Amino acid sequence: MNPNFGMKAVDELVKQPGSWLKVGENTGIIVSSRVRLARNVCGRRFPAWASEEDAVRLLHDLNPILGRLQACRDPIVLEISSLNRMEKEILIERHLMSRDMAEKGKGSAVVLKRDESIAIMVNEEDHIRMQAMSPGLNLRNLWKQIDAVDSEIESNVEYAFSPQMGYLTACPSNVGTGIRASVMLHLPGLVLMNEINSIIKAVSKMGLAVRGLWGEGTDAAGNMFQLSNQTTLGETEEVIVERLEKIVLEIDEHEKNGRNRLLEQKGNYIRDHFGRAVGILTHAHMLNSKETLEMLSALRLGLDLGIISGWKRAMIDELFLLTQPGHLQKLEGRVIGAEKRDLARARLVRQRLLDWK
Amino acid sequence: MNPNFGMKAVDELVKQPGSWLKVGENTGIIVSSRVRLARNVCGRRFPAWASEEDAVRLLHDLNPILGRLQACRDPIVLEISSLNRMEKEILIERHLMSRDMAEKGKGSAVVLKRDESIAIMVNEEDHIRMQAMSPGLNLRNLWKQIDAVDSEIESNVEYAFSPQMGYLTACPSNVGTGIRASVMLHLPGLVLMNEINSIIKAVSKMGLAVRGLWGEGTDAAGNMFQLSNQTTLGETEEVIVERLEKIVLEIDEHEKNGRNRLLEQKGNYIRDHFGRAVGILTHAHMLNSKETLEMLSALRLGLDLGIISGWKRAMIDELFLLTQPGHLQKLEGRVIGAEKRDLARARLVRQRLLDWK
Repeated sequence: MNPNFGMKAVDELVKQPGSWLKVGENTGIIVSSRVRLARNVCGRRFPAWASEEDAVRLLHDLNPILGRLQACRDPIVLEISSLNRMEKEILIERHLMSRDMAEKGKGSAVVLKRDESIAIMVNEEDHIRMQAMSPGLNLRNLWKQIDAVDSEIESNVEYAFSPQMGYLTACPSNVGTGIRASVMLHLPGLVLMNEINSIIKAVSKMGLAVRGLWGEGTDAAGNMFQLSNQTTLGETEEVIVERLEKIVLEIDEHEKNGRNRLLEQKGNYIRDHFGRAVGILTHAHMLNSKETLEMLSALRLGLDLGIISGWKRAMIDELFLLTQPGHLQKLEGRVIGAEKRDLARARLVRQRLLDWK
Repeated sequence: MNPNFGMKAVDELVKQPGSWLKVGENTGIIVSSRVRLARNVCGRRFPAWASEEDAVRLLHDLNPILGRLQACRDPIVLEISSLNRMEKEILIERHLMSRDMAEKGKGSAVVLKRDESIAIMVNEEDHIRMQAMSPGLNLRNLWKQIDAVDSEIESNVEYAFSPQMGYLTACPSNVGTGIRASVMLHLPGLVLMNEINSIIKAVSKMGLAVRGLWGEGTDAAGNMFQLSNQTTLGETEEVIVERLEKIVLEIDEHEKNGRNRLLEQKGNYIRDHFGRAVGILTHAHMLNSKETLEMLSALRLGLDLGIISGWKRAMIDELFLLTQPGHLQKLEGRVIGAEKRDLARARLVRQRLLDWK
């Protein structure tokens, strides 16, 4: 494998947002959907118990199969060990691989459809983790897409499968269907109305997990919340996906109500909140990640409510991505420390918002 | 006295800043100077011990004398009891009378030269408190001006005077010369470099008092500090004035040094500070007094350092005044509560800064 291949491929990726952030296609509240399946190859050790040799052999065996998947035509294959820290950050920030994956050595790889709508991790927690992603609420379609990918792989590989349990996985929480369906929601209305905690509680009781922008263990930075199923066993994929979809639509309604009440009850406060966000984003000289996400979230809500104008939501969504440390350093063309990143971030945001306006 | 006279006179005043805030005449760091004398009329009770009848009689006796002072040609005479709350606030905000004066009833009055450079309070803590004010550092001239006013009054009135003690006053701290010389300084450099406290300590040891923007007991809002002499006894007015002038010039140097080191050592931080101030002042929809003064202080410093451009310092100094509650309500034409004031303040600041730019 050409050692520069990974780098060039990442260069290509950062030129535009992934198709799951496609301009105009998300609904404001429901940002994107994702469905992933966990699979393991029969007769091989799970990655955590495998030697490097085992891992390399598995990747070697899977490579030709994944490389010619119908669904991924001409995919990008990125070996983790060939990527530098910045490139790994970029893949994480684009939701194309997990943070855990960045720590893996030889034998681990990510296979990507060029529009980023499909990503397959080899030798992360399981042998194969495949996902399909798209803007807006699109879980049923994504399930069909990833099911087709799964079937195509299964026609070439024998999966670890138990007739009683279903698909076997490294962590018991994934056993059965191995499915995790998730939806990213922008919920500033519920946050600003102080109603988000009761919603999270209710949703948890219904067997869903609520996570932050970058998945497990992260904050809901920028008021972005990821909702996903917890159970993978004892139900069909269709039931799991439909239940999530139903709850997402309910939360979407709650958020719309929250936004309306925000305008009615706290109109001055919210106009001030939006104005300050615009003022800071277009005038600050140093912006850290957290504040940037908060301000972009305000700007995004202001646009959705029609109180702020002059920008498109897709521009703001792109900034959510471009202001992350990996993307920022890629745009700067070099690795830079935190203070310089804050300067570069403020410059980028300022220029983009003023150019676009 | 025409009961509308006070109101109309205040209307006139608010049309422009007082001469002590005259466009372009202050130096940035040294904003304005003031010299006041405390005097009492021989054989009359001090105001705190006087009856309303006593006070009214004293004002009646002083009125013709103060009304035809050479130095004040055609003065404005405002009886406190004829002013409403908003008008009193305006006089306080313009440094033409004390906050204590606003609580006084019949017999208390303020006599103003029309350009506001001379103001005389009758029946505040003492029978007569006369002040001269001007932009920049101008203490010796102000002392001469107010000395002339004092001599003119003294040629018509017998002051309470002791050959041993000098002029007698209601509070022992003013006995002797009855002089209080003060200078308003804008010291954001020393504040941002965390050096202001050691300066205040040193200055206090030299027998000076350090107060906030609105005098005794107020915060140094907007990084505005008032320096004045503490002692009034045992030294001539010239010595008192010259010592204050000398210390003010030293602090001016310290502030200049502080500003230079701020640029050298915290350049990014300070550019961010300025940028955010501009962003918030031009985009917020609600601004309280305190935040407004802080942001205007940053803007003022940014202009002085040449990092911000497009406005003149005098515009910012005018906003320092116009955004105070009394002036703001006068501009709005009615008494309004705190939230509405915050809205009106933000609107005023936004419009002025955008119009001026």
